[in-house]
Amino acid sequence: MKKISLLGASGSIGLQTLDVLRAHQDRFTLKAFSVGRNIDQARKIIEEFNPSLVSVQSKEDAERLAGEYIGKVKVLSGHEGLVETAIHPETDILVNAVLGSVGLEPTLQAIEAGKIIAIANKETLVTAGHLVMDAAEKHGVTILPVDSEHSAIFQALQGERHKNIERLVITASGGSFRDLSRAELKNVTVQDALNHPNWSMGAKITIDSASMMNKGLEVIEAKWLFDLPYEKIDVLQHRESIIHSMVEFHDSSVMAQLGTPDMRVPIQYALSYPDRYLHKTDRRLRLEEIGKLHFEKMDLERFRCLDFAYQAGRTGGTMPTVLNAANEAAVALFLKEKISFLDIEHVIEKAMSFHHAIQSPDLRTITSVDQETRSKILAEFKG
Amino acid sequence: MKKISLLGASGSIGLQTLDVLRAHQDRFTLKAFSVGRNIDQARKIIEEFNPSLVSVQSKEDAERLAGEYIGKVKVLSGHEGLVETAIHPETDILVNAVLGSVGLEPTLQAIEAGKIIAIANKETLVTAGHLVMDAAEKHGVTILPVDSEHSAIFQALQGERHKNIERLVITASGGSFRDLSRAELKNVTVQDALNHPNWSMGAKITIDSASMMNKGLEVIEAKWLFDLPYEKIDVLQHRESIIHSMVEFHDSSVMAQLGTPDMRVPIQYALSYPDRYLHKTDRRLRLEEIGKLHFEKMDLERFRCLDFAYQAGRTGGTMPTVLNAANEAAVALFLKEKISFLDIEHVIEKAMSFHHAIQSPDLRTITSVDQETRSKILAEFKG
Repeated sequence: MKKISLLGASGSIGLQTLDVLRAHQDRFTLKAFSVGRNIDQARKIIEEFNPSLVSVQSKEDAERLAGEYIGKVKVLSGHEGLVETAIHPETDILVNAVLGSVGLEPTLQAIEAGKIIAIANKETLVTAGHLVMDAAEKHGVTILPVDSEHSAIFQALQGERHKNIERLVITASGGSFRDLSRAELKNVTVQDALNHPNWSMGAKITIDSASMMNKGLEVIEAKWLFDLPYEKIDVLQHRESIIHSMVEFHDSSVMAQLGTPDMRVPIQYALSYPDRYLHKTDRRLRLEEIGKLHFEKMDLERFRCLDFAYQAGRTGGTMPTVLNAANEAAVALFLKEKISFLDIEHVIEKAMSFHHAIQSPDLRTITSVDQETRSKILAEFKG
Repeated sequence: MKKISLLGASGSIGLQTLDVLRAHQDRFTLKAFSVGRNIDQARKIIEEFNPSLVSVQSKEDAERLAGEYIGKVKVLSGHEGLVETAIHPETDILVNAVLGSVGLEPTLQAIEAGKIIAIANKETLVTAGHLVMDAAEKHGVTILPVDSEHSAIFQALQGERHKNIERLVITASGGSFRDLSRAELKNVTVQDALNHPNWSMGAKITIDSASMMNKGLEVIEAKWLFDLPYEKIDVLQHRESIIHSMVEFHDSSVMAQLGTPDMRVPIQYALSYPDRYLHKTDRRLRLEEIGKLHFEKMDLERFRCLDFAYQAGRTGGTMPTVLNAANEAAVALFLKEKISFLDIEHVIEKAMSFHHAIQSPDLRTITSVDQETRSKILAEFKG
């Protein structure tokens, strides 16, 4: 029985993780979880999974829940609660599916506590990949990717040797706007951007898919997860999202992982690894029904956010933190209809151009650069 | 340094194996090889690779060569020579790239001698898969596939567990006649059939690709190599031959191996396994340049030979031997323009319908059924 802690249980990845646990009750048990403000969801999870610990964002919600479930579950709140959930002594595996940089410290603490980490929180690796991977190595902890692209690469690397890798090829559906020109991107709405062709995901990541920043963050994550320089990480447009990513080896052989888009597959793989468990679905891949798979070169001039990510990654240090914080702030402004879709790029470009990267930053430096970047952008758009 | 014995050095796979050895002289050394009647090629190989042993088909050729290379190389001939080459004590790996059932006994003897077997000789597994795999298990010998399809599956299975396999998907280009209807197949010529769209191969295998018998033989080989029932082995038409084959696991994840069609890649993989060596080529896979990959259901009514192979495989025992022998005889008749392309099917169908399969046949039974099947067909078409 694998004992799970799940951060971000009410988000898209969190709910699909619960689906996986539900399908394999003989193999997994949920011991601890967190939600933000979705207390109804917390109640449902407590009743269904009977965990020992739950953490919520606010103290008030925590007190209310504690009152409702006296003697049944321990309830914590805030940053401290999130960390306690991550390092809960009854658990083996932490699934980190929170959004944003709030996921960083719980991950680092869970690594120190020797937990296996299944990571769906992009910000952790983007802003502090060096800290996470160093800590993982030091404590002999496995970092398992949950993103479909990184899971594909991780699967393709099973039984292989790192020295033989020629390059990674991360596939990109192209997002909601893949068929629009730069000119046409000027007037797109929030609703347009939220309409992803292949994957059903949260709002932030759907916008990031449309701007290609999601792919940019994945490139930076891949650099850390797979310990490769940026020149060995390519992005390929593949509109069907059937090939989830690939690894080319130096013998010119390419290994790929394929499937119909279903996040439960990579989530389950992270939890079942190195084994695979049955996934009951009527949507198994039948390429003869799909007929054609398409591939196109990724256009870095049209998708400037992807280019920014490569630049930030190559600069290193705190620059990816600025990239990520500026993007989060800009997407929030776009979702509130305060800026246009193409303004997202402008906000990020400006933030990066004003920042002097600090190399090998510690957690405190990362947090302070992150907050400074957000404050500056918020201040500018409040006026 | 890996020490190689190569059976069938002057054939298509043999020559490409020599290319691989040539590219990695620091890793491989050719200690023994065989050719049939291509004595010029034998001379070239002796001079370039300086092996200890060579075997040729006829005693006369052996005597001539021995006279030319006194004190330089030992020369043998015939069946005995082939076996001696296969079990040469200085070698670690046998690459079996001979055509036809003549490759069977040398393989079995090499397994008994504890050699690693890189197998490109289809007949060995098709007619005697049970003997080969039993012997390999008994002697703790690894059987490494050289065919691009089986190599793809073998690569996709690295780091995986057999119990998790849902099915194998063997891809098929569709061969020279993939766009013709049954009616149009009636009048195709030998020249038409020899014009394969993707792969440059020998005449027999090119005809087998056009009739889809090649894929049928691969299905039977896959059954033995990967120890799976026929209902878990599917064939998918994929005209570009870029995805070389796939494995679907029960979690619905599909692992595939891809590359531009180049037989040196799977040959080298078999020789470098479990490592991968650099393959210098200007034809690395760039899917953005290919643009589209196509997939179609395989039509077993149009490609009756594939259906025959599944039938023969499911019947088991000596039936695959009859399938293979009848096919070899029929293809030889077609290449001599004695029968039409569609007659190949008729010859095989008739031979199978008259045969009562003997289960778990020994080597002698297999050889006698093989020869009997050929003689009957030759007798019929001599009149």
